[in-house]
Amino acid sequence: VSAAAGTDPAALLRGTVEALPEGRLVEQLEGGDLLRVKFGVDPTAPDIHLGHVVPLNKLRAFQDAGHTVVLIIGDVTARVGDPSGRSAERPQLSAEEIEANARTFQEQAFRVLDAERTEMRRNSEWLEMPAEELFALARRFTVARLLERDDFAKRMAQEQPVSALELLYPVLQGYDSVAVEADVEVGGTDQTFNLLFGRDVQQSFGQDPQSVLTLPILPGTDGVRRMGKSLGNYVGVTEAPEEMFGKLMSIPDEVMGQYWLLLLGEDLDEAQPPVEAKRELARRLVARFHGEAAAESAETRFDQVHVEGQIPDDVATVAPEVGEDGTVHLPALLASEFGVSSSEARRLIGQGAVRVGGEPLAGERLDVPLEELAGRVVQVGKRRFLRVVGPADG
Amino acid sequence: VSAAAGTDPAALLRGTVEALPEGRLVEQLEGGDLLRVKFGVDPTAPDIHLGHVVPLNKLRAFQDAGHTVVLIIGDVTARVGDPSGRSAERPQLSAEEIEANARTFQEQAFRVLDAERTEMRRNSEWLEMPAEELFALARRFTVARLLERDDFAKRMAQEQPVSALELLYPVLQGYDSVAVEADVEVGGTDQTFNLLFGRDVQQSFGQDPQSVLTLPILPGTDGVRRMGKSLGNYVGVTEAPEEMFGKLMSIPDEVMGQYWLLLLGEDLDEAQPPVEAKRELARRLVARFHGEAAAESAETRFDQVHVEGQIPDDVATVAPEVGEDGTVHLPALLASEFGVSSSEARRLIGQGAVRVGGEPLAGERLDVPLEELAGRVVQVGKRRFLRVVGPADG
Repeated sequence: VSAAAGTDPAALLRGTVEALPEGRLVEQLEGGDLLRVKFGVDPTAPDIHLGHVVPLNKLRAFQDAGHTVVLIIGDVTARVGDPSGRSAERPQLSAEEIEANARTFQEQAFRVLDAERTEMRRNSEWLEMPAEELFALARRFTVARLLERDDFAKRMAQEQPVSALELLYPVLQGYDSVAVEADVEVGGTDQTFNLLFGRDVQQSFGQDPQSVLTLPILPGTDGVRRMGKSLGNYVGVTEAPEEMFGKLMSIPDEVMGQYWLLLLGEDLDEAQPPVEAKRELARRLVARFHGEAAAESAETRFDQVHVEGQIPDDVATVAPEVGEDGTVHLPALLASEFGVSSSEARRLIGQGAVRVGGEPLAGERLDVPLEELAGRVVQVGKRRFLRVVGPADG
Repeated sequence: VSAAAGTDPAALLRGTVEALPEGRLVEQLEGGDLLRVKFGVDPTAPDIHLGHVVPLNKLRAFQDAGHTVVLIIGDVTARVGDPSGRSAERPQLSAEEIEANARTFQEQAFRVLDAERTEMRRNSEWLEMPAEELFALARRFTVARLLERDDFAKRMAQEQPVSALELLYPVLQGYDSVAVEADVEVGGTDQTFNLLFGRDVQQSFGQDPQSVLTLPILPGTDGVRRMGKSLGNYVGVTEAPEEMFGKLMSIPDEVMGQYWLLLLGEDLDEAQPPVEAKRELARRLVARFHGEAAAESAETRFDQVHVEGQIPDDVATVAPEVGEDGTVHLPALLASEFGVSSSEARRLIGQGAVRVGGEPLAGERLDVPLEELAGRVVQVGKRRFLRVVGPADG
């Protein structure tokens, strides 16, 4: 996985935005104590994408220098509903969904982290306190201080709702730091207020306040917005090698330097031709999550399809369900084979992004006679293929 | 106790400030249903004073019309500390103190209320909910709505602290209304926001919202500020008959109309000479809390002391503790006999408010030879007397 960062403070500060208060983290590192480095995640989505890998890499570097990572799953707050600005109305998750997400997150996080030096915690361990203690906790902090959070101020000025729970969120997250006695907390730059507020909460409980290390937000494959599954600019760490390779080859050149620094921990060699640098980035990341062999075959396949315009060698064969009229309902086929939703399938067909035997499917045909498909390759977009088995083969 | 108000809505609205939303309470009363009328108290001080009697009188009138009063002791919030603007730093009370205050309050409240038609509740019954439910409760309401409360806006503008718990207080108080399914809530005008917010909380839980009935705040014996023990403008319902009578005779004429309306439920007869009206007010209130005989003897004693300048007949005799030098330490004597604090005693002596045998004690003497006191009456202020037993009598 990641290379050992050693105990050199400069290596741990590499690729970060701020270490606050100034000079404190270096002091802690030079002091030689083994630090407890906190990172919190809300288990509201099941999969880890490369955006999550940025802090996980940094945590791994701390582990390689001998420190302990405390990974906190925010299960209590997830059960109540995510109070982030992005999705005030996101539905509350069931305990089972959260459990499943937390398990998936943990499994995937261990593709980057060293399990031996990771303490996994759930904030239900301490936030399921008696109501009275919660009230006493809320009593310690003023509304004015909490409203200093940038996005609260902004949203209230725009008359967007901020719930009373959201206002409490930094208090709860800060109390996590008290509960695990964090020495350092790592998070994205969007978390700066919450991370710093953790210091207030620790001080209020008589603890030495943590130092705070913020990291840049990785842009998605569109090169503009942060990665998000619903934005279609997302690379999941469990995606198939070919998908991951292809998506990484599609990022704009302008963000490649960030991908190199934040995901590989190395500066981009500006002398290298961009397409080669991107190919190396894709190869190394696929190798990291799927191994060298998978990376090699993903690259071969990418070249066949994208560079040489070929159909890959290893296309899966499928015997589709055939209706009474002898036709195959394409949206159902694309759903069962590629997990594409029915509405997405209709859109792709309408756009001509579905090809049969190399030719775009004409018109907006959703139902196609089996004989037209049999023995042919159905291709969706650039990277998805299947070969239809005819009635004779079945 | 109070006269029956019948079922006439006008009688129940008498002496109130607002019934909100307009027309709703009259509708409820004319509908003929028996209503659940909520009143909340924080058991942060042990004694009930005449300021509390104002809402208790109104509640009694509802009871006399057949309705049920739900008296809620805010034990949970008292344990956390009173978050009112008046005393943000008031210390948290122990569970024992709260229990004792709650018992005292209950006993004293039944001097006004009909126990048969009173449901006594503690908000710990429902506010001791799992943390997760509390978060889900806080999630229902926005910060902007809660900050509409007048005193929050005012205090924040003045950069005075408003704690996150205080912000939640209306939510908690409103949830009390949900828990007891209140049809009406009664409170002082300073509670208007909280009472109305209870409607929001009930609606959020799918309940018919309560109507809200606000009452004026009774001015203290200074005629200016609301009654408060620390302000010295306070008449407790368990104070001795003579004290109560004397204090009521000291109120300014300007507030007498309010005392008549809010405490006796009657308009002041402007044709009556003020001193007679005040004497009748004092007599009737003492009779209410101590009985007719006590009221009569309190009045007699008042006349002896205040009108005729005499020492009353029934002065208690005391054998004070005498030091090795043969002197009596007056602050200790006043503390043990009248419950006057040591610093207050020094102040009274310094002001010449302590008399021995009718003469003000000269200078600032705190230690007086027993022989100077023996057989004489020690008088503090206008209404407190004791007779010192000499060594010969002892």
